[in-house]
Amino acid sequence: MRIGVFAEGRTAVVLDGDDAADIHGRAAVDVSELTGGEPLHRLIEHGYDFAAELTRERLADLPRRAAAGLDWKPPLPRPGKIMGAPANYYDHVDEMPDSATIVDWGLFLKAPTSVTGHRSTIRLPWSDKRTDQEGELAVVIGKTARHVDPKDALDHIFGYTCVLDITVRSTEDRSLRKSFDTFTPIGPWITTADEIPDPSALELRCSVNGVLRQHTSTSKLIYGVGELIAYASAAMTLHPGDVIATGTPAGVGPLSDGDTISLTIDRIGTLEVAVSADGAIPYLDRPGHKGER
Amino acid sequence: MRIGVFAEGRTAVVLDGDDAADIHGRAAVDVSELTGGEPLHRLIEHGYDFAAELTRERLADLPRRAAAGLDWKPPLPRPGKIMGAPANYYDHVDEMPDSATIVDWGLFLKAPTSVTGHRSTIRLPWSDKRTDQEGELAVVIGKTARHVDPKDALDHIFGYTCVLDITVRSTEDRSLRKSFDTFTPIGPWITTADEIPDPSALELRCSVNGVLRQHTSTSKLIYGVGELIAYASAAMTLHPGDVIATGTPAGVGPLSDGDTISLTIDRIGTLEVAVSADGAIPYLDRPGHKGER
Repeated sequence: MRIGVFAEGRTAVVLDGDDAADIHGRAAVDVSELTGGEPLHRLIEHGYDFAAELTRERLADLPRRAAAGLDWKPPLPRPGKIMGAPANYYDHVDEMPDSATIVDWGLFLKAPTSVTGHRSTIRLPWSDKRTDQEGELAVVIGKTARHVDPKDALDHIFGYTCVLDITVRSTEDRSLRKSFDTFTPIGPWITTADEIPDPSALELRCSVNGVLRQHTSTSKLIYGVGELIAYASAAMTLHPGDVIATGTPAGVGPLSDGDTISLTIDRIGTLEVAVSADGAIPYLDRPGHKGER
Repeated sequence: MRIGVFAEGRTAVVLDGDDAADIHGRAAVDVSELTGGEPLHRLIEHGYDFAAELTRERLADLPRRAAAGLDWKPPLPRPGKIMGAPANYYDHVDEMPDSATIVDWGLFLKAPTSVTGHRSTIRLPWSDKRTDQEGELAVVIGKTARHVDPKDALDHIFGYTCVLDITVRSTEDRSLRKSFDTFTPIGPWITTADEIPDPSALELRCSVNGVLRQHTSTSKLIYGVGELIAYASAAMTLHPGDVIATGTPAGVGPLSDGDTISLTIDRIGTLEVAVSADGAIPYLDRPGHKGER
């Protein structure tokens, strides 16, 4: 089942074909009575069982619209935590200046305020500093997890989505360079975990302006999805709706004003975003720089 | 005005003396009708004007209890974002292996799940890896901020509190090394901004087992409070309830099982926490390590 959020916070289920069923107000729990977060986030936090509640028969009665025509919003506009995996494909390690991998670096955090959705626009902050696309598989946590064993880790997943981990190449802390507003497009929707029993066999393609830059299989992850959850949960309690970006393969590259990025992952779909340099300023003019050169 | 949260999420106002007034259910807005977050977080998000609403006359009618006897909880148990300032005092830069400062490194993020409160216990994850205390002044954002000018920045502050930015010294990304559960004690309460018109003149003392390790004035911050807000808001939208840890002075040092940490900041108060190594494991046994030595 593919579940997304469209305009005005309405939750849709994308059916097998290209139609979306609008479940707003039809979920077995009344979302308006749940506290905290956005509609889909609340349903995930409350353990709503989409597969059991939204049977094919029930969905058949709901209004349908063409999924492609919907104004998709980020399925989770402000996750509690976004964790990322630095250097989790060897071919990306090989293209970077440092030979360290996730074994050395562990995970990093991204700001929840950096999230945007399908067909949104990434805003480049600096007119003269390289900023890259990093296409990745993202995991959405479904159950609270702490010190989870890798073999039990997949049980804690709600679903999977596409994520672009946009990154400035500069000296600042990694968690800042990846956390500018608009730097974490996710979506267009979440595919529930039951549809992806093996997340280690997904093909990923990321293109910029129609030119393929990144192409891999998640079979090549250094830490697979289960190991990432185990690793993260050994440090931090993971809550439903938390997101783990699993890392990017080789092919990261600079973005420019007017670019379009397209990220496609098996069994999920295609996340498309634009790039704008409107409002970008020279890096040396940043606040706090104080004029050193 | 000093505002904190005690057992079962009840909000208290600490009066000029040592008494706390329990305002639960007495705020002019009904907290239960606000969505998202914990009680005090909700009041901050909704712009509740504590000074205007909770006049001395109104407070006089409320039940009072000795502040010292209350079971204080973190005033913001799960902030939307916690940002930290690496190397923001020159004397701390001098004691670290790298000569970089905040000008080079910018800010970093800490996980919201790492928050604990007054008289909580920090849990050391590794039995054989140095983990340090870093005592700091924390700023609590009161108004949404984006691209704020330093001279207007203080207008966006709700208040100030004490924070311990607990940090493992290892190779992992800074945002992970500082984000283990229990690694961000804050409190014991928040002092509202009207009581601290000049946050650049606060004395800070941090002791471990009664021995003074850190002693500074916030006048020595490289980026002062206003500059930090300007800098952070140039990258990320800041929301009410977000927290900025302003950086730590010289004197960081290793923690051990059974230690007690005490952080005192002018006009705020004293945050005390314990340290435990219960459950700590050898660093080489961490998940994902895969046996390299």
